[in-house]
Amino acid sequence: MKMGILGGGQLGRMLLQAAANYTVTTYVLENDPQCPAAHLCHYFVQGDIQDFDTVYRFGKQVDVLTIEIEAVNVAALEKLEQEGVRVIPSASAIRTIKNKIHQKTLYQAHAIPSAPFVVTQQQTELTEHLHFLPAVHKLGEGGYDGKGVQILRIEADLPQGFNAPAVLEKMVPIAKEIAIIVAVGQDGSTALYPPVEMLFDPILNLLDYQLAPASLPEQTLWRAEAIALKVVKALQSAGLFAVEMFVDTHGEVLVNETAPRVHNSGHHTIEAHECSQYDMLLRILLNYPLGNTNARSTSALVNLIGAPNYVGSAYYEGLQDTLRMENVYVHLYGKQQTKPGRKMGHVTIMGKDVTDVMHKANLVKHTLKVISKNTIHE
Amino acid sequence: MKMGILGGGQLGRMLLQAAANYTVTTYVLENDPQCPAAHLCHYFVQGDIQDFDTVYRFGKQVDVLTIEIEAVNVAALEKLEQEGVRVIPSASAIRTIKNKIHQKTLYQAHAIPSAPFVVTQQQTELTEHLHFLPAVHKLGEGGYDGKGVQILRIEADLPQGFNAPAVLEKMVPIAKEIAIIVAVGQDGSTALYPPVEMLFDPILNLLDYQLAPASLPEQTLWRAEAIALKVVKALQSAGLFAVEMFVDTHGEVLVNETAPRVHNSGHHTIEAHECSQYDMLLRILLNYPLGNTNARSTSALVNLIGAPNYVGSAYYEGLQDTLRMENVYVHLYGKQQTKPGRKMGHVTIMGKDVTDVMHKANLVKHTLKVISKNTIHE
Repeated sequence: MKMGILGGGQLGRMLLQAAANYTVTTYVLENDPQCPAAHLCHYFVQGDIQDFDTVYRFGKQVDVLTIEIEAVNVAALEKLEQEGVRVIPSASAIRTIKNKIHQKTLYQAHAIPSAPFVVTQQQTELTEHLHFLPAVHKLGEGGYDGKGVQILRIEADLPQGFNAPAVLEKMVPIAKEIAIIVAVGQDGSTALYPPVEMLFDPILNLLDYQLAPASLPEQTLWRAEAIALKVVKALQSAGLFAVEMFVDTHGEVLVNETAPRVHNSGHHTIEAHECSQYDMLLRILLNYPLGNTNARSTSALVNLIGAPNYVGSAYYEGLQDTLRMENVYVHLYGKQQTKPGRKMGHVTIMGKDVTDVMHKANLVKHTLKVISKNTIHE
Repeated sequence: MKMGILGGGQLGRMLLQAAANYTVTTYVLENDPQCPAAHLCHYFVQGDIQDFDTVYRFGKQVDVLTIEIEAVNVAALEKLEQEGVRVIPSASAIRTIKNKIHQKTLYQAHAIPSAPFVVTQQQTELTEHLHFLPAVHKLGEGGYDGKGVQILRIEADLPQGFNAPAVLEKMVPIAKEIAIIVAVGQDGSTALYPPVEMLFDPILNLLDYQLAPASLPEQTLWRAEAIALKVVKALQSAGLFAVEMFVDTHGEVLVNETAPRVHNSGHHTIEAHECSQYDMLLRILLNYPLGNTNARSTSALVNLIGAPNYVGSAYYEGLQDTLRMENVYVHLYGKQQTKPGRKMGHVTIMGKDVTDVMHKANLVKHTLKVISKNTIHE
């Protein structure tokens, strides 16, 4: 079986680590030959995942094709599907998800709870929707890792809105941010991972701390699971999906957004769950039975992001001390250059309870830092 | 940091899977470009690990060099050591271990219990040692995976003995075969994994079933641990070592042999222990602190070896059913051709107790078989 991955970042890297448990032949398409996944595949192809011809030619070589980022040429995937290449997630699921307007419209069409929204085509329209403030303005296409998202609190913020098709979404009073990873097999079978609970860095807007399983009242858990399943049913595609949700202050569960791929919120599954999200996606791609999503223990996830003010060759300060800690698992993505906010690695902490893993997660956050010893100050 | 591996088999494959958690740049030297590890390194070098010049040139490119098989050119490693390349395990440890005569002599010199033996230079000498029978005759150099070993029970068996330097070892009444993996850091720190208990296939003489931790009386455990530590101290080298031992019917612990590398008896550590033997070796090579060897649960290991009478393109019969079992972890080494007795993969089973994992191990053994659908009958 020949498996292709569009994109060669850390998600591809970890997928390929897991792929070496099977007999699959692996292909990666990515512009950067120094990317985290480049050296772990059988065949690395340098090229642009957004270019029709490049993606089409790459896809023709393989039996099954997946993505590790949504910003790919979907038209090429559609043609490949028509010609018999298995594309997981499907081209149409990617097309829906990569555009936030389509994504919100899908939720609306399937009565999946999400924050109230309007679609705006240009910045000047925003003044018509003052009653939506405070709101989040999300670019239809092109947003990633916190880019393409603007908080518009008051009328004076409106000039910062996007002058392009976008979603203006009412801010909801968030009690908790959670995510559920859902696996959908080629035969339509599904498996849900327990929800995780997230904390965001308010400045860089990148996930930097996570707890699993989320601490939720049973009713909320059931609601979140039902909603996550509803999302993947609406998408009508095999694959692995991360459904990010808000629990608001009234206990309502609202979908924030969905990623049609292995996800940052599932890194902890490598050690802390019976079947990792990477192994699970491989099982889906290779048409094997879905794995077991049970947690082995409570876990926390700390993202290692490039420290502020450091640009240059990456140095992992505190690595030795971190590696000395028990039940602490370090993953470095092998990126040579660090810059503020860049995802450079993650650390999973397993433990007997929430107190235990949170204590250790804080210790890791204060111990391990990605800096540079030859920083070029910007 | 640049790390080189001599050999590209499954041990190299699993070491490279683990290496992608760190920022190390990896090099593999191996004759076969289709070998299990070839596609998982940054730089694959095709060449003979037994050739002086090839090993020397390969080693000059890296900061630290390790092995995944003992049959390497040790003279080249000695020269590399003299020129400042870090070789782990040391050239002298490999030289001692790869020759069974030197290995036995080392045990004797350090008062490490092992079965009584004599060294024989040629087959005709065997008649002088009739009082050693029943005995095991082991070729000094070149034995591997059960080759180079002859059982000589009675005088009539002597013509089957080796006509080359060899060890003639008295058979001991074996109650149990166990192994302990010992990690030795560059700073001399040590860590022991709990012992595992092994069962061998009497026909192919390949390990095919293993239980961890071994069920041993406390006194025997202490003795085994003390002996394993004594072996690595005698070898005076950093590295990861698998010390294989017999517990005889009197409860005495005797060293059988030692492997200076990651080992088949440690595959279960990938899932069943906090730090896997592969992660542990990387920590040693990269001069990181040793990891924690605690078991997460009881585990069993089933080796997947090529079924008798099948030669050809490998097919994994029962794979889907095996992947459906809970807490069962399949590792396939990606070898394209199967033949009787070839190590094609392994399966680790985790469980709450010995009964649980043994039951499941038997189920796996009867479910999953490596055959070929296009067998060329030999």
